Amino acid sequence: MAMSHVSKVVLAYSGGLDTSVILKWLSERYGCEVVTFTADIGQGEELEPARDKARKAGVREIYIDDLKEEFARDFVFPMFRANAVYEGEYLLGTSIARPLIAKRQIEIARETGADAVAHGATGKGNDQVRFELGYFALNPDIQVIAPWREWDLTSRERLLAYAASHGIAVEHKRQGASPYSMDANLLHISYEGGRLEDPWQEPEASMWRWTRAAEDAPDAPQWLELTYTRGDVTAIDGTPMTPAQVLATLNAVGGRHGIGRLDLVENRYVGIKSRGCYETPGGTILLRAHRAMESLTLDREVAHLKDDLMPRYAALIYNGYWWSPERKLLQQLIDQSQETVNGRVRVKLFKGQVTVVGRESASDSLFDPAIATFEDDGGRYNQGDATGFIRLSALRLRTAARLARKGH
Amino acid sequence: MAMSHVSKVVLAYSGGLDTSVILKWLSERYGCEVVTFTADIGQGEELEPARDKARKAGVREIYIDDLKEEFARDFVFPMFRANAVYEGEYLLGTSIARPLIAKRQIEIARETGADAVAHGATGKGNDQVRFELGYFALNPDIQVIAPWREWDLTSRERLLAYAASHGIAVEHKRQGASPYSMDANLLHISYEGGRLEDPWQEPEASMWRWTRAAEDAPDAPQWLELTYTRGDVTAIDGTPMTPAQVLATLNAVGGRHGIGRLDLVENRYVGIKSRGCYETPGGTILLRAHRAMESLTLDREVAHLKDDLMPRYAALIYNGYWWSPERKLLQQLIDQSQETVNGRVRVKLFKGQVTVVGRESASDSLFDPAIATFEDDGGRYNQGDATGFIRLSALRLRTAARLARKGH
Amino acid sequence: MAMSHVSKVVLAYSGGLDTSVILKWLSERYGCEVVTFTADIGQGEELEPARDKARKAGVREIYIDDLKEEFARDFVFPMFRANAVYEGEYLLGTSIARPLIAKRQIEIARETGADAVAHGATGKGNDQVRFELGYFALNPDIQVIAPWREWDLTSRERLLAYAASHGIAVEHKRQGASPYSMDANLLHISYEGGRLEDPWQEPEASMWRWTRAAEDAPDAPQWLELTYTRGDVTAIDGTPMTPAQVLATLNAVGGRHGIGRLDLVENRYVGIKSRGCYETPGGTILLRAHRAMESLTLDREVAHLKDDLMPRYAALIYNGYWWSPERKLLQQLIDQSQETVNGRVRVKLFKGQVTVVGRESASDSLFDPAIATFEDDGGRYNQGDATGFIRLSALRLRTAARLARKGH
Amino acid sequence: MAMSHVSKVVLAYSGGLDTSVILKWLSERYGCEVVTFTADIGQGEELEPARDKARKAGVREIYIDDLKEEFARDFVFPMFRANAVYEGEYLLGTSIARPLIAKRQIEIARETGADAVAHGATGKGNDQVRFELGYFALNPDIQVIAPWREWDLTSRERLLAYAASHGIAVEHKRQGASPYSMDANLLHISYEGGRLEDPWQEPEASMWRWTRAAEDAPDAPQWLELTYTRGDVTAIDGTPMTPAQVLATLNAVGGRHGIGRLDLVENRYVGIKSRGCYETPGGTILLRAHRAMESLTLDREVAHLKDDLMPRYAALIYNGYWWSPERKLLQQLIDQSQETVNGRVRVKLFKGQVTVVGRESASDSLFDPAIATFEDDGGRYNQGDATGFIRLSALRLRTAARLARKGH
Repeated sequence: MAMSHVSKVVLAYSGGLDTSVILKWLSERYGCEVVTFTADIGQGEELEPARDKARKAGVREIYIDDLKEEFARDFVFPMFRANAVYEGEYLLGTSIARPLIAKRQIEIARETGADAVAHGATGKGNDQVRFELGYFALNPDIQVIAPWREWDLTSRERLLAYAASHGIAVEHKRQGASPYSMDANLLHISYEGGRLEDPWQEPEASMWRWTRAAEDAPDAPQWLELTYTRGDVTAIDGTPMTPAQVLATLNAVGGRHGIGRLDLVENRYVGIKSRGCYETPGGTILLRAHRAMESLTLDREVAHLKDDLMPRYAALIYNGYWWSPERKLLQQLIDQSQETVNGRVRVKLFKGQVTVVGRESASDSLFDPAIATFEDDGGRYNQGDATGFIRLSALRLRTAARLARKGH
Repeated sequence: MAMSHVSKVVLAYSGGLDTSVILKWLSERYGCEVVTFTADIGQGEELEPARDKARKAGVREIYIDDLKEEFARDFVFPMFRANAVYEGEYLLGTSIARPLIAKRQIEIARETGADAVAHGATGKGNDQVRFELGYFALNPDIQVIAPWREWDLTSRERLLAYAASHGIAVEHKRQGASPYSMDANLLHISYEGGRLEDPWQEPEASMWRWTRAAEDAPDAPQWLELTYTRGDVTAIDGTPMTPAQVLATLNAVGGRHGIGRLDLVENRYVGIKSRGCYETPGGTILLRAHRAMESLTLDREVAHLKDDLMPRYAALIYNGYWWSPERKLLQQLIDQSQETVNGRVRVKLFKGQVTVVGRESASDSLFDPAIATFEDDGGRYNQGDATGFIRLSALRLRTAARLARKGH
Repeated sequence: MAMSHVSKVVLAYSGGLDTSVILKWLSERYGCEVVTFTADIGQGEELEPARDKARKAGVREIYIDDLKEEFARDFVFPMFRANAVYEGEYLLGTSIARPLIAKRQIEIARETGADAVAHGATGKGNDQVRFELGYFALNPDIQVIAPWREWDLTSRERLLAYAASHGIAVEHKRQGASPYSMDANLLHISYEGGRLEDPWQEPEASMWRWTRAAEDAPDAPQWLELTYTRGDVTAIDGTPMTPAQVLATLNAVGGRHGIGRLDLVENRYVGIKSRGCYETPGGTILLRAHRAMESLTLDREVAHLKDDLMPRYAALIYNGYWWSPERKLLQQLIDQSQETVNGRVRVKLFKGQVTVVGRESASDSLFDPAIATFEDDGGRYNQGDATGFIRLSALRLRTAARLARKGH
Repeated sequence: MAMSHVSKVVLAYSGGLDTSVILKWLSERYGCEVVTFTADIGQGEELEPARDKARKAGVREIYIDDLKEEFARDFVFPMFRANAVYEGEYLLGTSIARPLIAKRQIEIARETGADAVAHGATGKGNDQVRFELGYFALNPDIQVIAPWREWDLTSRERLLAYAASHGIAVEHKRQGASPYSMDANLLHISYEGGRLEDPWQEPEASMWRWTRAAEDAPDAPQWLELTYTRGDVTAIDGTPMTPAQVLATLNAVGGRHGIGRLDLVENRYVGIKSRGCYETPGGTILLRAHRAMESLTLDREVAHLKDDLMPRYAALIYNGYWWSPERKLLQQLIDQSQETVNGRVRVKLFKGQVTVVGRESASDSLFDPAIATFEDDGGRYNQGDATGFIRLSALRLRTAARLARKGH
């Protein structure tokens, strides 16, 4: 749907080829002013070059924000409280970053008086949905421009031709470095395309960027102690840390030990199956450790309720509904469940594996060794109670069995 | 609840100290005849000694059955079609064996004219529930004897004294070999008790029996190719195998590579949190590989429906409801979903890790590379469709946002 | 998305103004041949006039099918086995008819060599989705034409002008009879639009067509006895009936007693809230009676599993996913659960109300009066069992309470 | 399980025969002091006679509390925010009263220094579970006495004989008045036993106490307007009311119009199916009206989330888990969802039926007539968006259909 009229647009701008072309195309196609927005969410790239490029392209309002703490604190950590995993495997590393970008773009649109926002995601992927559901939820009247769905630059050749004809610099080396489409932030780095489009093909060893191969990881294991406060890691090995520091630290240590590689086929919201590879070293550690902390401090039925709701919560994030009322309601339930999730977890890292080896909660452990023991429990648990428990649990089964025996 | 009158009882008998004491105690306490039943479900122990002991104890009807194939085919494999995991971690290795034991005991009771069955599980655990729900579901009028809930042999000292005074041989060495309460079958071996009763303590290296420590695993990875037919592995590296052969093979290979150790705190059905350690080498490989096979061949919503139902299905098995009508209904849904789960999965085993590196289905792949590609798709996917898709998906969010803006 | 080329299109044709205009417009717009398909699904209108009109409009292939039995047997009855209700109220009367129309259109397209199908549903409603998801699921390569989303006849005035200028007869009386948009079939009749667009307005008494006002219903109640076989009504008051006969009979009797009116605001799949009024006399009786039959013959956990899955199943039908694999899987589970749903239910009809007053199953009742009685049960239920049952069910609550008391 | 030692027990005491016998039996059996607690929760009986009887029986600490407002405000109203219905029919009238009684008993135990609590519920029912789970959750170390599970007064004859021999007055008239076991509070009155133990038998007309037969209800309908504030009714026909006033008013009006009778077979938590009849006039109105208020003011996915969780929430209340952490978490989610549930609902009452005829929300309506209209919407909704929406929703179905066609 073509826009009615656009006077100023806030573009999510990385400084790379694609968004540089988009920048130019937007002003050509819409005759509008472009505001660029570049976020540091831990992708590990210098952002100042983006400023230079934007300036050279004539942009007058340039936003470059460090959102790492906000990203970790308000997006990644809340999600990990839910033990969220999409389709049993994927830790939602890309999905969780989009709502923050969308929110900041809408804020900047308000600050700059822009009437439109734009992004560089393609029309086949999940990211367009995540961006745009965010835009609309936060500003229902914003105009949204998705160049990849509009323009005719439908191949890399055409894109390069456009760049050439419009004086947009193409950094050949960097582009050439990887045949994969990649996305990175504090939580993960992802790879799609190239040889991965055949799901039978194993990825090349050279693809992976954040983690060592298990084969090259240290020959000695490493132990970490994570301190939990209300479901969040607040210290590592006794050192208090901010959420972003926690992620950065676990990424570094986990990556060294080869932890967090994933290779999967996933179901996109737009109806396509796609192959993706991911490195999520810190997140992989966090997921295991958080479950362990909960295993000691959450009531059984609360834990099961969370488990039952988790796939729905994860799908909401995957599909782009972070800013929806249903995600927020689920989040409140999840957050409230974490009041008692306090204590320490010990994990062992070795050759790609993270293993929980200990968990403890001085304040909130529901593990009662006096009851659980195989030894004499001094009468805290009356084994005879189990007889009635089983007999009533079995009653309906027996009634049915009696009926069946009658020859039905 | 004391039994009315028992004339003959079928005892699940291992030949170990506990069930030997139970054997004697049953005939003393109830003045009844005892039939022993010993099953080979892959626990890796000689069963003939059990026959000798039973004979010496005066038992006239001794059943020793090899149930390995039935166990793998009718219990383990159906469960893995569901990707069943209890509380996010536990592969249900003990839970899945109990319904088979219960079923066979009830069959033997019918064959031998026994009016009661007995087991050696304690009054604090899940196994008593699993056994007895099975008994009652399969024979609503059977009498059930659970000596641990009835007798006064409530400490190991008393048990040993009873054994001594009744001439029951105690194999001191073997008993002394492990401080843990263990259970093993084709799917797994488990450890409870001892130092594990403190969840902060890491298990001793010497506890683990089936898997090498990752540190001692081979320095070279190994690749396996699993062939799937309707959701089940039917060949490994091209060699057709029965279900029990599949499990045995994967246990051997996986164990060598240190795969499948687990250390967790779980919530028992009787209301207790307990610490358990598990080795499930083959099962760990099966779970990852099956998900990968499904990722290619299952429709997205079918996969999500299965994921949503999985925790409930797993809890049913954990809690002992294998023979319930609700488990059977879920099983039929799960089995029917597997019609298209055919193809091959390639996994890499190394230092405790199993990684999926390829999946392929000549007959049933829903992965359409022509659509998924980043390259030109020749019009198979119209990117413009995404605009309407997003706009209608966002409509309710926009309506709410407009209302909120009105100053509500 | 404009069609590439259309040579022959199968139109769902009622003979009314809208589809008559569409018929003409299709041949003008696409220069294609039009096949008309008119189905009798119990809407209570003569179909021969549609044949005449189609013939006059030059249509050479005219399909007029009586689908009442197929509709009742293969769509309505399976849905009622699930006790399906959308958003707590709506009995899915319109939703359930669309998949059958879609299926028959695709069949006719194959028979006539047509390469496209068309329907008269608007771009705001659910019906377009239900038709088109059906088309695509049954023939992925069919071309779909939805004139309301394509043409510029966007107001009634333009439509009438087009009709006038193309010699399409407008039956002024009949059109004038109702200010509402209506849809009818064997299961229900629905009303939308007009004064209903204000959800605070009570519908006029004259709107309702199938049911008497409760005020005008007979002053004496009427009792019916429904016989169930595997979850379906197979006889009324002892008279065996086909599914369509059951629906017709219950509609007649229920309508006379003022049963089945509904007035609600519902959430459409496309993101809009809309007001609808419905008359579903037979369906309202079926829903209550079926639940009553199940209350006696279904195991508790099976019933709860069905209840938990019902909203999902109902939403699938509402949203148009009848032909999806996930609906089929759920249907199989539901159907299998009905094996034991056999017996009789007695209902009382009076002044708009249907009340269950008796239920009985000679073959499958799980109601055991000997256990349920307040009188002496002769030991079939041991009240002491409840002590253990409660104590173990309370164990986790007590553990948490003890911890809380410690001053956490 | 016999109690260790009891010095003082708080008895839930109605003053009727059963609890009078229990009062005597407790002091005889345990040699303990008895504190009586009688609550007015709207059962419609004089409580002062209970005081006299307790005094005459020698009780020194007598608690008689008016809990009607607390019951309506903190138990009934929160439950109705969830649209809670057990097994599709039952409005949980008895279930919701037990947690309040349990809570107050535990408070009184603390105030009076009692070490035990007792109730008069039988060992076959749900109420024992509801009381005792409440007791244990609120005081994990309290001793619980359930005389019906302990004593040998297992028939009415024995009970009467005990009463006679202990000088307990039996009010023959009142006891003779009803052959049913009844329970009443502000929300409902229930009937069990007697002729109801045959589920095929229709209840006698004389059984019902709160509602007129529809046949005897007024011949003219009555309309009510309910004002909602955050999900609760706060005024009727413009008159502000407390929660208890709302219930009392709706019971009176609804009862006069014959509203709220229910006759069903339900599945008890202890594994028994039982027949019960209920009158819930006010609750029946509240349920319908609340859904109507939500239909206008709740986001679709929030409403669906609530619907999906409802059966679980209802089962928690039915089974006695009001004081569990999982019920509390669900309650918080439900309560938070009600922020926008503000406005008015108009209902019509006539001959046993309650019909919603209007709903309106000045502040929070998500119904957008400008979009929903069949008339020209001035471009607020782009019908063309539906094309992309449907095409992407259908994509996975088409992919599967293409594969199926290949001859799989």
